Amino acid sequence: MKRQLDEPALRSLARGCAVLGTGGGGDPHIGLLLALQALEEVGPTELVDLAYLPGEALIMPCGMVGAPTVHIEKIENGGEGAVLRDHIERLTGRTVAALMPAEIGGSNGLLPACWAGRMGLPVVDADGMGRAFPEIPQVTMHLAGVDPNPGVMTDERGNVLVFRAVSGAWMERLERAAAVEFGGAGAATEYIMTVAQARDGAAISGTFTLAIAIGDALSDAEGDPIGAVLAVTGGHRLMAGKVTDVERRTTKGFVRGSVEIEGLREDAGRLLRLEIQNENLVALEHGTVLASVPDLITVLDSETADAIPTERVRYGQRVTVIAMACAPIWRSPYGLRMAGPRAFGYDFDYVAIEELAGAGA
Amino acid sequence: MKRQLDEPALRSLARGCAVLGTGGGGDPHIGLLLALQALEEVGPTELVDLAYLPGEALIMPCGMVGAPTVHIEKIENGGEGAVLRDHIERLTGRTVAALMPAEIGGSNGLLPACWAGRMGLPVVDADGMGRAFPEIPQVTMHLAGVDPNPGVMTDERGNVLVFRAVSGAWMERLERAAAVEFGGAGAATEYIMTVAQARDGAAISGTFTLAIAIGDALSDAEGDPIGAVLAVTGGHRLMAGKVTDVERRTTKGFVRGSVEIEGLREDAGRLLRLEIQNENLVALEHGTVLASVPDLITVLDSETADAIPTERVRYGQRVTVIAMACAPIWRSPYGLRMAGPRAFGYDFDYVAIEELAGAGA
Repeated sequence: MKRQLDEPALRSLARGCAVLGTGGGGDPHIGLLLALQALEEVGPTELVDLAYLPGEALIMPCGMVGAPTVHIEKIENGGEGAVLRDHIERLTGRTVAALMPAEIGGSNGLLPACWAGRMGLPVVDADGMGRAFPEIPQVTMHLAGVDPNPGVMTDERGNVLVFRAVSGAWMERLERAAAVEFGGAGAATEYIMTVAQARDGAAISGTFTLAIAIGDALSDAEGDPIGAVLAVTGGHRLMAGKVTDVERRTTKGFVRGSVEIEGLREDAGRLLRLEIQNENLVALEHGTVLASVPDLITVLDSETADAIPTERVRYGQRVTVIAMACAPIWRSPYGLRMAGPRAFGYDFDYVAIEELAGAGA
Repeated sequence: MKRQLDEPALRSLARGCAVLGTGGGGDPHIGLLLALQALEEVGPTELVDLAYLPGEALIMPCGMVGAPTVHIEKIENGGEGAVLRDHIERLTGRTVAALMPAEIGGSNGLLPACWAGRMGLPVVDADGMGRAFPEIPQVTMHLAGVDPNPGVMTDERGNVLVFRAVSGAWMERLERAAAVEFGGAGAATEYIMTVAQARDGAAISGTFTLAIAIGDALSDAEGDPIGAVLAVTGGHRLMAGKVTDVERRTTKGFVRGSVEIEGLREDAGRLLRLEIQNENLVALEHGTVLASVPDLITVLDSETADAIPTERVRYGQRVTVIAMACAPIWRSPYGLRMAGPRAFGYDFDYVAIEELAGAGA
């Protein structure tokens, strides 16, 4: 399957990427503006299924690394993807056939599509998370044993770094340090792979299609956009209320903090707390876990059901918090080790959202 | 001219590099131990004049980047030079003919010799400073317009970073951030050049020979080793006394701080203050500048005349502070802009040590 990412598709994609971003991945509004500009200048990017490409073709996963707060005001120059591609091709002696978002969430779902279009390359209907995660090795390519090397990073000034790290964890440390030095964010690629590897479990297929479907559902929803998002994602409503406290700091290349939401109407008297590292990690109610990584936790505007990224959450917003099941690979032992609650320093075991939601019902 | 760096030469070299290190460049004792081990395992490294090599041959300047305090306890694995060389050759498609210390001062004068020996390559009798400086672009290659790219950095674990920075200043920022992430120090190369460029002013020739001569003078000195160092370097004695205060912190990849020395005997009643960024930057007496970068300021043990690196200076040491003229290129307008007092944030103009010493005499 191939399709052109025209303006309606990009607009739906942006809304869907916001929902799948679980608060992170960069502001999709910035990503949408960049994508619309690329559309105007070079025409639509082609979205292709993994099945459509030859098995030996090379896929370059890419996106922005850093703190989403920074990304709001430090905008890409649009040519970062080409710089990354040129270096990958020179380093490997191979031709990049398609781009893929390392994460479908936030602006990171849109940027690779916009970069690909500017290079005349397609973007594959897949990503490495099925959501957004804060750290480099938290990708399905890592779980599948794909080598993170060579990693390449660039900034809007034209600086380029090539990384050959001894592990995914060192790739994270070194890229994060560079992102901080770049001013808080930079464009990067790691874990280049073949289409065959991507098909064989190193990527999550169909996530562009899902994101666009979420955006379409939002546009088509009449009266109950929250219900439309829950229907298309199979998600669970955790609570609706008002944001009463936001603690947020940009530090060491991440946004960290927490959000408190007081229940309104049917949820009056309830108090929900979200903890953040770029993305929403955990939803707690009086110490009880309502949902946690690797499942997706997203803050929606209670009126429009548009997702609110962590860097845009503020006092007084009327929001509805939902949680959605992660891609099954994240529930494997290795998946949980890389991106479960303990990977983020929490001292509790993961329980799937279906189970938690069932227990509370 | 060619000569073998045998054990006596290495021991003299280490003492000379300590003097030329102006407090920085890494502890020469560590460098000496690494060089003696390499000598035992692979035989002596060959030291060659720039005149001895063909003009188109490639020279790889290299050394450690980071905080000398870290370097005392985070030791190289000995193979860093080969990793740097392999990447430079792969990136440029050219063969490295010889290594050169980016700075002759401290262990950074010894390490390239030891790395070269392990690769069967010579080290050239030259360096990029004629001393040690804290920052990457403070090298004669930069003054001569040599491209700093590609820079390569590695650590004892085997991580490798390749840098293509938009300027020397960005090379400094990005390498420093990586050094910090590596734990405070890493091995690096930048500003690769041809022998012709090095001969044409991009390197300072004869600095190994000078360092060995300083070490030999120290060994041969009878009764007045301080006098012997001053004689061979043409240096000026600033003051002799006792270290009464040391303020030193390792921060952002540098050692920063200050040292206070109270005069003894003929200098009784005097108080000298040294300010440090890896190297001794400025010697002050009641606000009057006695000597400053780019001239060399070195703290010698008053008994042995062995130089004491900034990370080893401590309360109670009996020391003699000397200052020596820098290589003439550092006194050019561009040289002073890169490494004069104002380059380090001081609000005064450089005055040559000969002039300052003459005024005080």
